[in-house]
Amino acid sequence: MINVGLVGGTGYTGVELLRILVQHPEVNLKVVTSRGEEGKPVADMYPNLRPYTDICFSVPQLETLSECDLVFFATPHGVAMEMTPDLVANGVRIIDLGADFRIYDTDEYSKWYGIEHTCKDIMAETIYGLPEVNREQIKDARVVGNPGCYPTAVQLGYLPLIKSGVVDTQNLIADCKSGVSGAGRQAKVGTLLCEASESFSAYGASGHRHLPEIKQGLAFANQNKDVGLTFVPHLTPMIRGIHATLYAKLTDTNVDLQKLYEEFYQDEHFVDVMPFGSHPATRNVKGSNFNQISLHRPQDGDTIVVLSVIDNLVKGAAGQAVQNMNIMFGFPEHTGMTQPAMLP
Amino acid sequence: MINVGLVGGTGYTGVELLRILVQHPEVNLKVVTSRGEEGKPVADMYPNLRPYTDICFSVPQLETLSECDLVFFATPHGVAMEMTPDLVANGVRIIDLGADFRIYDTDEYSKWYGIEHTCKDIMAETIYGLPEVNREQIKDARVVGNPGCYPTAVQLGYLPLIKSGVVDTQNLIADCKSGVSGAGRQAKVGTLLCEASESFSAYGASGHRHLPEIKQGLAFANQNKDVGLTFVPHLTPMIRGIHATLYAKLTDTNVDLQKLYEEFYQDEHFVDVMPFGSHPATRNVKGSNFNQISLHRPQDGDTIVVLSVIDNLVKGAAGQAVQNMNIMFGFPEHTGMTQPAMLP
Amino acid sequence: MINVGLVGGTGYTGVELLRILVQHPEVNLKVVTSRGEEGKPVADMYPNLRPYTDICFSVPQLETLSECDLVFFATPHGVAMEMTPDLVANGVRIIDLGADFRIYDTDEYSKWYGIEHTCKDIMAETIYGLPEVNREQIKDARVVGNPGCYPTAVQLGYLPLIKSGVVDTQNLIADCKSGVSGAGRQAKVGTLLCEASESFSAYGASGHRHLPEIKQGLAFANQNKDVGLTFVPHLTPMIRGIHATLYAKLTDTNVDLQKLYEEFYQDEHFVDVMPFGSHPATRNVKGSNFNQISLHRPQDGDTIVVLSVIDNLVKGAAGQAVQNMNIMFGFPEHTGMTQPAMLP
Amino acid sequence: MINVGLVGGTGYTGVELLRILVQHPEVNLKVVTSRGEEGKPVADMYPNLRPYTDICFSVPQLETLSECDLVFFATPHGVAMEMTPDLVANGVRIIDLGADFRIYDTDEYSKWYGIEHTCKDIMAETIYGLPEVNREQIKDARVVGNPGCYPTAVQLGYLPLIKSGVVDTQNLIADCKSGVSGAGRQAKVGTLLCEASESFSAYGASGHRHLPEIKQGLAFANQNKDVGLTFVPHLTPMIRGIHATLYAKLTDTNVDLQKLYEEFYQDEHFVDVMPFGSHPATRNVKGSNFNQISLHRPQDGDTIVVLSVIDNLVKGAAGQAVQNMNIMFGFPEHTGMTQPAMLP
Repeated sequence: MINVGLVGGTGYTGVELLRILVQHPEVNLKVVTSRGEEGKPVADMYPNLRPYTDICFSVPQLETLSECDLVFFATPHGVAMEMTPDLVANGVRIIDLGADFRIYDTDEYSKWYGIEHTCKDIMAETIYGLPEVNREQIKDARVVGNPGCYPTAVQLGYLPLIKSGVVDTQNLIADCKSGVSGAGRQAKVGTLLCEASESFSAYGASGHRHLPEIKQGLAFANQNKDVGLTFVPHLTPMIRGIHATLYAKLTDTNVDLQKLYEEFYQDEHFVDVMPFGSHPATRNVKGSNFNQISLHRPQDGDTIVVLSVIDNLVKGAAGQAVQNMNIMFGFPEHTGMTQPAMLP
Repeated sequence: MINVGLVGGTGYTGVELLRILVQHPEVNLKVVTSRGEEGKPVADMYPNLRPYTDICFSVPQLETLSECDLVFFATPHGVAMEMTPDLVANGVRIIDLGADFRIYDTDEYSKWYGIEHTCKDIMAETIYGLPEVNREQIKDARVVGNPGCYPTAVQLGYLPLIKSGVVDTQNLIADCKSGVSGAGRQAKVGTLLCEASESFSAYGASGHRHLPEIKQGLAFANQNKDVGLTFVPHLTPMIRGIHATLYAKLTDTNVDLQKLYEEFYQDEHFVDVMPFGSHPATRNVKGSNFNQISLHRPQDGDTIVVLSVIDNLVKGAAGQAVQNMNIMFGFPEHTGMTQPAMLP
Repeated sequence: MINVGLVGGTGYTGVELLRILVQHPEVNLKVVTSRGEEGKPVADMYPNLRPYTDICFSVPQLETLSECDLVFFATPHGVAMEMTPDLVANGVRIIDLGADFRIYDTDEYSKWYGIEHTCKDIMAETIYGLPEVNREQIKDARVVGNPGCYPTAVQLGYLPLIKSGVVDTQNLIADCKSGVSGAGRQAKVGTLLCEASESFSAYGASGHRHLPEIKQGLAFANQNKDVGLTFVPHLTPMIRGIHATLYAKLTDTNVDLQKLYEEFYQDEHFVDVMPFGSHPATRNVKGSNFNQISLHRPQDGDTIVVLSVIDNLVKGAAGQAVQNMNIMFGFPEHTGMTQPAMLP
Repeated sequence: MINVGLVGGTGYTGVELLRILVQHPEVNLKVVTSRGEEGKPVADMYPNLRPYTDICFSVPQLETLSECDLVFFATPHGVAMEMTPDLVANGVRIIDLGADFRIYDTDEYSKWYGIEHTCKDIMAETIYGLPEVNREQIKDARVVGNPGCYPTAVQLGYLPLIKSGVVDTQNLIADCKSGVSGAGRQAKVGTLLCEASESFSAYGASGHRHLPEIKQGLAFANQNKDVGLTFVPHLTPMIRGIHATLYAKLTDTNVDLQKLYEEFYQDEHFVDVMPFGSHPATRNVKGSNFNQISLHRPQDGDTIVVLSVIDNLVKGAAGQAVQNMNIMFGFPEHTGMTQPAMLP
């Protein structure tokens, strides 16, 4: 059993972490923080947890958090940077579900997030927490930057193509669709049911914060050569799920693409390569940590279409964070995440 | 480990049973039948199960099913009656999620379901599988009639009031709302997304098949005296969940109703009595086997309002069936159902 | 053509009024006010109006509003009371879609809305704007209090029963379900898509502000004798629509209830009595000003069930307000509201 | 007033046509046919029409239909081909909302629709009913092939780019999202609420019947040179709306794209070019015949992104058909379609 703390337990990634952690056999949930809800039982805000925990929100304190083996940050960008140095100094390992430790180029971080990066030294040792890419380094990491939801779906979908060098990496198009929970639990007019349901629209089409994170991951797979990527996110009238529709031009049309993907992911528990020409639905992975991928080659032309789906709150956030925790502490990678997706 | 069979694995209660059973630590899933889908992998129809099972649908055969310790029927009414006698004779225990073994009065059954009851002898030993009422008899039952979704929500909500004799049992009103999955997976115009979403309506207001089942259970609680009940079900534009709003006239206005409910259910793992005056939402129990109940007494008058919510596919069907299985085979009652509801 | 002003054009009742008014053949839309959005084109906030109007939000000013023949208030309670006296003094007629002019008993108003009523003199001449009840008085009214959404659906459903004296008026139960737009356009966590969709719950079960308004209307129909009413509202995961399920005990079981309703509403353009035993769906009236009603008598007992549906934003707010305007200015009652409901 | 008939009145495009036609000032609705529903009042199937028409479904007969000035076909492909020759011979003008008269190359039609084209002679005089392209020819057309929903959204979005020759027409990508009503009203498992809501997926990614229609229109705009197009449709959990996200490589990066679009559509009543960089939502046009378009140029690169939204049942089907009718009979083009979209 390890002692675990959660900073920022009121948002959707926070409650999703709690949904998994309260029944994780190796986890003792020691502290859940919220400045605004201090003293309130977590289960009052999230009644689905009533039968599982009596823990109350507390204000984040270095002393209490330092008693944990691991602290998750499910906070807006900027928050994790403040507390991480002291916690690390006290021997606490960190998984940040926010954006502070995702982008190695801290100038790029500042450009997109509009604040100074105050942990440049820690960034030097931080590991980007995409297990399918960095599993070995995650094992011993002190600080893990948990990937964003779009970057997870897009990178897992593109990696085999880019690593094998069979597509034109300068003309990638990622048309992505996300459920509304990706926008978080803050009270905003735009995500009211009456605004976001029965409608579909793009947003941030001219530039979205996940773009530099995606390009960083794809460039890494591309032998550190930049890729050319157009990324357009869309808001979809549903709670959970991301569907990435990925387009690329084949430079080699003779490769067996299905074989390429099946072999690339054959040892990955949470990546499911479906039969060629199938259509994964986001509901296939709802509430689970799985990523489903399928391939299409319309009219047998030189355009490859990759369909990649995840649950944005699980593999796109809390589930991947627990997967990283399991790796960091030597638990089987799917511990605490053994249930199938909920369908229907 | 017990060997378990499922007859009728293609409907929503069937896939929900599979979602629970594929990761139940005491269950070996031996056979899943479907006449229409013979030979097809179950996971082709339900891709959420791809990482969990390779089992294929087979046609129901007495021989194969007889190798099971327990067989679930998730079939339309009439089907379970055909095979149950032979299976019981072969020592197989039965849990029927359909209607065949719910109503002890077989004439009443025929009146509402329009077919002859062909297992009258077996009905004599059948146990109505509401664990909170019949736990002891369920332990040794050979045949369990798993309750309907509305009857579960309504009975659990009314039982403490009726058993304690504090309400007028001749003027009960149960206004119930169900998600669309209650209507099943058959292709019907009425449950198309374009028909059932963004709309709300009652159905069967003049008489619904769950009425006799509810009245049977409430009469049993009422020392076998009939109750007067008006039951109006409504179709709600969501996938899962039942919300029962129950009205009754208090004949004793001095009783501590909250205390009555908390004590009545204090030993029940799956019944959660919420604070007086709260409002349980169906999402609090989505995907879980819990029933949440709260009480209201508008303007401190003599009308008591009970709010009772369940997931119609779990506590209203598959989860309650697994709860019954756990009781029948001596497993802890919540085995295989340890995860919190999925919120959001 | 009449000059019309709208105070509070940013909420859902405001935009619904604009949707009707911009193509109303007798209306010249002169001013739309919003303190927060001054100078912004209305169509920037509501792009569905882009092809229809260039009008911009302005701050409410007595001078400008006084140039109107009619001013609608689509504002939170309290706002209309402030400006109405001066506007009436300047000869402007008023329709308040808020609550300020609905409840004749100003003490009752203060009790439920928590503020002093500052227009007691004007209340003396105010007409409650339910055309099916007060059409004649509305014609010459200077100030009309436009009914709330629940009160419209419940009163229209109960009126024939109560006026004809065939039910026990001391034991009425109104179980009501509303779409989320009834909660308005303010940014609140509770009405986010991720909170309100895929879930169903009651709210205000112990007491809701529409209760005194409903009881006032039913008492008026009951020869000014109070009625006993239990009213429980529920939040339904859809944008528009109210479904009222109304229960009453028949004191006379020989009356032809269907005939009673058909004759009672035979001259009403916007009330549609459906065949006995049918089930109106809220989508049948979505976007229209119609109210559909049907009757049920379960098991031919002494309980009558009335199903009454409206679009909460139209007959429950903006459409009824335009209906009142048409009556006040002598236009055919359905002018500007000639389109059928949008189905699907 | 003209006499109008509708063949196939039971589907969603049929009822949408009726929603518009029953209040169209120039239309006398003479006959609505359905073989399956003969004799049944149309309003029994579509209760939103109860206050508007008593017309009953009848079986399609040449004699009755020949009394009409215009007959709409809202039928599956193949049906319109059967009756059109005789009706045309009797002087009846035809608008087919199905696919029979959309594709000039009848071999291509047969390849995608799997049936012989039996009206090759009539195809020679048929006009493809996209008013923004063929308005002049539509005026005198005897037979109009009403465009499909995807082809309307994609063509209107791409036309200015292709006609002006500023993009690489060999590498177009159209990522399209449709509401579920596009799949029609047939009872199919895939479009049940429990299958299609709270999920998102692509379909027909390897080839969809609308592809040849889109390529025909774009080639026509491209001086009859073929275009290279990848078209991936997706099913979106909402009733109405199509959102086309269109990608193209600029061959000329100096052109003022916004000016190009605004001038191209300056005289089009139903095409609304929004400000550069905005994001049209499908709800902006729900229930209306408008098409909203906006442009993006991510990171000021050489990729142009066009966002084009319509209501698939209106501008994508019934509304465009009425627009064509208005053109054919000399009515103002927006007659009967004067209401703004319904928002929320």
